[in-house]
Amino acid sequence: MALKLHNFFRSSTSTRLRAALNLKGLDYDYVPYVLRDGETRTADYLAKNPQGLVPTLEREDGTFLTQSLAIIEWLDETRPEPALLPSDPDGRARVRALSYMIACEIHPLNNLRVLFRLGDQFGADEEAQKAWFTHWVAVTFDALENELSGSRATGRYCHGDTPTLADLCLYAQVWNNRRFDIPLDTWPTISRIYAALDELPAFQKAAPPNQPDAV
Amino acid sequence: MALKLHNFFRSSTSTRLRAALNLKGLDYDYVPYVLRDGETRTADYLAKNPQGLVPTLEREDGTFLTQSLAIIEWLDETRPEPALLPSDPDGRARVRALSYMIACEIHPLNNLRVLFRLGDQFGADEEAQKAWFTHWVAVTFDALENELSGSRATGRYCHGDTPTLADLCLYAQVWNNRRFDIPLDTWPTISRIYAALDELPAFQKAAPPNQPDAV
Repeated sequence: MALKLHNFFRSSTSTRLRAALNLKGLDYDYVPYVLRDGETRTADYLAKNPQGLVPTLEREDGTFLTQSLAIIEWLDETRPEPALLPSDPDGRARVRALSYMIACEIHPLNNLRVLFRLGDQFGADEEAQKAWFTHWVAVTFDALENELSGSRATGRYCHGDTPTLADLCLYAQVWNNRRFDIPLDTWPTISRIYAALDELPAFQKAAPPNQPDAV
Repeated sequence: MALKLHNFFRSSTSTRLRAALNLKGLDYDYVPYVLRDGETRTADYLAKNPQGLVPTLEREDGTFLTQSLAIIEWLDETRPEPALLPSDPDGRARVRALSYMIACEIHPLNNLRVLFRLGDQFGADEEAQKAWFTHWVAVTFDALENELSGSRATGRYCHGDTPTLADLCLYAQVWNNRRFDIPLDTWPTISRIYAALDELPAFQKAAPPNQPDAV
């Protein structure tokens, strides 16, 4: 039995994990879910992932892993090559901090379920949702741009010249930004790194439009 | 020079890190900031932490680490005893997933700066902020309760009988919930684990009311 990836083409956390699996050279079966249709809220799916979120990685033995960053750390520990974290603790701390800037400060605020909640609780229309989404991207991308452009540890990618966990998060977030057509030119270093990542087949193959459920 | 912790007594991410430092038996100088007064938005502080967030750990050599989870992973790699993550990859994946449930799905939505934004953009008053805050706690605590109560890996604490990264996040989140007086009795396993953690001096000492800047 192969690895099975329960996911959704447009999901940013799914994009991160697809790129990680591709970088590790791991094949997987693609199992798509339509979030808007509640396909991850069924009893069957909740048994795989108690949060009803994507992605979930179903392993060869039929057990499940949840939370994209936890799955990627697990992949890196069990399939070490190519490494997605540097070998030195300082480098690892920097890569994780860059990753969490996106994974803890942008993505959670701009999720589909958060945008729905803004609509339900505050009557936020598309324009108000865009203002919210854009605000949280800008707050953190401004800080991320400063950090990336000011650090000698930044290379072709976020940390040196091989892709790391931070690049997985950055690449997926830039794709996510297209939901509201946020231009990237305000952040030249982020733009440059995104473009470099987008040349890599592992990232291209993980991009939302290249998934079987893309619409 | 000792470690310096730039933080704020009520900050949930600061509470996590204080408990981690205490568990590792590390002394640190406590440097408080009043978030509401913009004390983390000064040029001086932004040079330490480009996001203007707490906590920041200033190391003995004068360099800085940011993002609480990245700092805790770094502590665990450089001061391995007592371990804050299990030694087996499956256990590490579970502990990280539990941690990220809180750190990526509750805390980012209920930050002070998010509550301010709800006020600014949607005119959310205290009651509307409470409804928002409570909603996101409940969505994830319901799933977390299911996971913790249904797994044989759960012990006295979230994973076995020694505190891990997941317990740091859980303990800090329960403290954070008091901001809006969210009762804990809906989630008996979370309640039980919180009570067990609150008996440990390392956690007690990290609790918001026990900090020098507590008001």
